[in-house]
Amino acid sequence: MARLRVHAFTITLDGFGTGAGQRVDAPFGDGVEGLHDWMMPSFRGEGTGVDDAAFRAGEQDIGATIMGRNMFGPVRGDWPDESWRGWWGEDPPYHHDVFVLTHHARPSLSMDGGTTFHFLEATPTDVLARATEAAGGKDVRLGGGVATVRAFLSEGLVDELNLVIAPILAGAGERLFEGLDALPTGYRVASLVPGGSGAVHVQVVRR
Amino acid sequence: MARLRVHAFTITLDGFGTGAGQRVDAPFGDGVEGLHDWMMPSFRGEGTGVDDAAFRAGEQDIGATIMGRNMFGPVRGDWPDESWRGWWGEDPPYHHDVFVLTHHARPSLSMDGGTTFHFLEATPTDVLARATEAAGGKDVRLGGGVATVRAFLSEGLVDELNLVIAPILAGAGERLFEGLDALPTGYRVASLVPGGSGAVHVQVVRR
Repeated sequence: MARLRVHAFTITLDGFGTGAGQRVDAPFGDGVEGLHDWMMPSFRGEGTGVDDAAFRAGEQDIGATIMGRNMFGPVRGDWPDESWRGWWGEDPPYHHDVFVLTHHARPSLSMDGGTTFHFLEATPTDVLARATEAAGGKDVRLGGGVATVRAFLSEGLVDELNLVIAPILAGAGERLFEGLDALPTGYRVASLVPGGSGAVHVQVVRR
Repeated sequence: MARLRVHAFTITLDGFGTGAGQRVDAPFGDGVEGLHDWMMPSFRGEGTGVDDAAFRAGEQDIGATIMGRNMFGPVRGDWPDESWRGWWGEDPPYHHDVFVLTHHARPSLSMDGGTTFHFLEATPTDVLARATEAAGGKDVRLGGGVATVRAFLSEGLVDELNLVIAPILAGAGERLFEGLDALPTGYRVASLVPGGSGAVHVQVVRR
């Protein structure tokens, strides 16, 4: 049975997944410098220990990805044209079908390396069905942003939520745990484990 | 120079210091079972390691305590009489002057073992001045509840904030980090360290 997994989703000590003021040159907003420091060695192929294991776990046995539009790019409202092709260049690090949730339709976009972005307006349940089919027996990874993860959590669709708490304070921004009053009825904290970077890795699973 | 210190203040993974529905038989509200499990061995005199060190640190070199009224008791509004004498019995574990912030005046209350509760309506700055004087050169400890800690944090009066993140989800309640947008300008996260209990100990200090 395919599972829906969130990996490497990082929040500040005060609970924010993004700071205030998200924009093209600050995709995570202000006040969150250092949010992803824990994964930088892994990006350079020099990761070690718990931090690196958490980074790599997000790439294992994944056959499709779901993300919100803000994770695909900074454009809001109607697409002015199709020139924005994601944050990742011509060979995005997915190599499978990526489903981008948006209220603004656009043709699918095939990139180098086997990544195809599909743009759709659909409920979490429906997009998960599409992604599960595309994953061909592997799991589906749910990317960000904050609102997207919350939407799937609040419908109980996430099987495994792997978070990281970064040792920083943002003060303001978008909270992950907001309006999720019923979360404890379906989920529990399985572990809190420190990484060598000073961040803490948290696994939340179904009860 | 006397410092204002918060110790052993415990929040859930989703950021709540109390659950919803605080009342006499549930002083921390609902959905927070296990919030203080990390300190139970220390209460029994059987604590070990990081958890026990964090518990004991809160008792070292403290000459006075400040707390909000809800930490003193469940009574809201006017005191019907003076029969409520705190949650701790006739010999409270303070053994010094304790300043209880309340809008409802009441005579000071001397207990066994050297604890005296003073009830006052005052700004955080003013109560800190009173407590600092009473502490006689030692530090002042700031207890809860959530609103009290937030009030002192937002005025930049806390010197050291020792938090614990418990491995539970509350879903709702009172958040510690709410309305503290300017916090990062004055404070930074010094460390995140796991305790043997599964909780994580966090130290927030001045920049």
